[in-house]
Amino acid sequence: MNKQLLLKKRPVGLPEEDTWALVSNEIPEPKEGEVLVQTHYISLDPAMRGWINEGKSYIEPVALDDVMRAGTIGTIIKSNNHPKFKDGDVITGWGGVQQYFTTTGDGHFKVDTSMVPMTKYIGALGMPGMTAYFGILEVGKIKEGDVVLISGAAGAVGSVAGQIAKIKGCKVVGIAGGPDKCAYVVNELGFDACIDYKNENIYSGLKEHCPKGLDVYFDNVGGEILDAALSRLRMHARIIICGAISQYNSTSIQGPKNYLSLLVNRATMQGMVVFDYVDRYKEAGMQMGMWMMQGKLKAEEDVYEGIENFYDTFTKLFSGDKRGKLVLKIIED
Amino acid sequence: MNKQLLLKKRPVGLPEEDTWALVSNEIPEPKEGEVLVQTHYISLDPAMRGWINEGKSYIEPVALDDVMRAGTIGTIIKSNNHPKFKDGDVITGWGGVQQYFTTTGDGHFKVDTSMVPMTKYIGALGMPGMTAYFGILEVGKIKEGDVVLISGAAGAVGSVAGQIAKIKGCKVVGIAGGPDKCAYVVNELGFDACIDYKNENIYSGLKEHCPKGLDVYFDNVGGEILDAALSRLRMHARIIICGAISQYNSTSIQGPKNYLSLLVNRATMQGMVVFDYVDRYKEAGMQMGMWMMQGKLKAEEDVYEGIENFYDTFTKLFSGDKRGKLVLKIIED
Repeated sequence: MNKQLLLKKRPVGLPEEDTWALVSNEIPEPKEGEVLVQTHYISLDPAMRGWINEGKSYIEPVALDDVMRAGTIGTIIKSNNHPKFKDGDVITGWGGVQQYFTTTGDGHFKVDTSMVPMTKYIGALGMPGMTAYFGILEVGKIKEGDVVLISGAAGAVGSVAGQIAKIKGCKVVGIAGGPDKCAYVVNELGFDACIDYKNENIYSGLKEHCPKGLDVYFDNVGGEILDAALSRLRMHARIIICGAISQYNSTSIQGPKNYLSLLVNRATMQGMVVFDYVDRYKEAGMQMGMWMMQGKLKAEEDVYEGIENFYDTFTKLFSGDKRGKLVLKIIED
Repeated sequence: MNKQLLLKKRPVGLPEEDTWALVSNEIPEPKEGEVLVQTHYISLDPAMRGWINEGKSYIEPVALDDVMRAGTIGTIIKSNNHPKFKDGDVITGWGGVQQYFTTTGDGHFKVDTSMVPMTKYIGALGMPGMTAYFGILEVGKIKEGDVVLISGAAGAVGSVAGQIAKIKGCKVVGIAGGPDKCAYVVNELGFDACIDYKNENIYSGLKEHCPKGLDVYFDNVGGEILDAALSRLRMHARIIICGAISQYNSTSIQGPKNYLSLLVNRATMQGMVVFDYVDRYKEAGMQMGMWMMQGKLKAEEDVYEGIENFYDTFTKLFSGDKRGKLVLKIIED
């Protein structure tokens, strides 16, 4: 049988467990030209919260009673004359929260797992890594010597964005929740400093670690931290609006009240969605793979097991009780 | 004697009359290399509200007991061996709210008033016009066919920005307060439509006049109108943060709660200050002068008289009880 997680409700605020329901259905048969995939790992991302709201955002919402959307990596266990994929191929794409699925292969990519563990393909070499790469380089336009601030610094996107900025010769300050995460960000990831927003005053931390202000702020969180960053901009600073996890479960969004700092500092705040860079994923993947092999780019996954534990794992995205890329393991690779 | 308006207080909220005091002092003598200027017109601008706050913004605040900062145009009545300026020259610059002043000429420019009335040099050909020109062209990057929204559309900056967008082949929608201003914006300035924010629902107005959304929003006001514009962005839209008159007298700034529309639409919000373009004022002035002569660019001034009436005139900036560039006449030109 195939366990599948269906969306049952449009939640208000932090989703409760009955937002989804786990059902068992027959394992589907691939039609002519399709493949059947068995999923190994499911990617859990803050963006999922947005996908279950009513109304189109940058992507159509998940429909009620549909399988919950998620990035996945899995093995093809049956190809029905697929033109490109064959049995045993490992592919990554939008498999959703289920154990098996069939696909024409549209939007799925074959990957090589001989050198790189599967989980990296939904982490640093997947959507979060691509977001970090194109966000910090293309939108942030970082250059050597820039002072760069990264929120969600211990997370899947922030950890990669900050390390890329270090590779490019920037001074990089992170913001993360709790002393353990901050120690990880500085000692393991090599950031120059990290502000613990749960135990430190962000404004004082910024004053201490960025005394001359910020050239680039990579925003994954919104809210108070965005306002604090705005208060410390240098001339011509760039803010990358990548996410706003502090606001995703709010019923009313907190707008950045310090936004007029953009005027004073001739600064720019620009939004990004990684899908715009799909034609360049390969280039970015090769570059980041190289950095990983050279030991310049580290990526960690926080792996939980079992589709039954989707909800408990999902809530860790918002409680902050995880480090690096949050992943749900379905079966051993 | 020389009547001068001194800053006496740092106001909270809308300034009261005792924020300033009018005093009389001897008319100063120009030192060697200086000129004595008699002011004809003083420019009244929303930015003045910011200049009297504590703390540096994009410019140092006016010090207490100093003459209130203002743009001016006046005639040189005495040159003490000035290397460039002679008696009778008309110069525009930062003369402040006073009848006479001396200067080395730094930051002042000689202008030709044979073809163009003096008031234009502190209006469409002065700081407001330059702000409009560089804001809409350089920051807004307008191109033919763009849908452009302009708030403060009947004001000194918005009226010019919108007309330039029309000249460049855009569809231009204004926002202004009251039916008279809206009629002026459409019938006199040639905008395609104008939404009366005092009597119409802005969201419905935007839906009606910009059914496919906005490519560019030139923001002079902030607050609710900025949020409404954010809710209607098209992909890759640009927002020019030029001012926020709705917030200047607020003790707490209202941040744009719809700012995540920047993410969804890969849009940009960028601040600007006209002083950055000082090297290009001449180029812009020539282009705008040409458009004026061709009848393509109209500019109106709302002129009040007498330095004693500074306060009543100043409050019109915020009550909206004026049209075009607000000017205080000191003596006949």
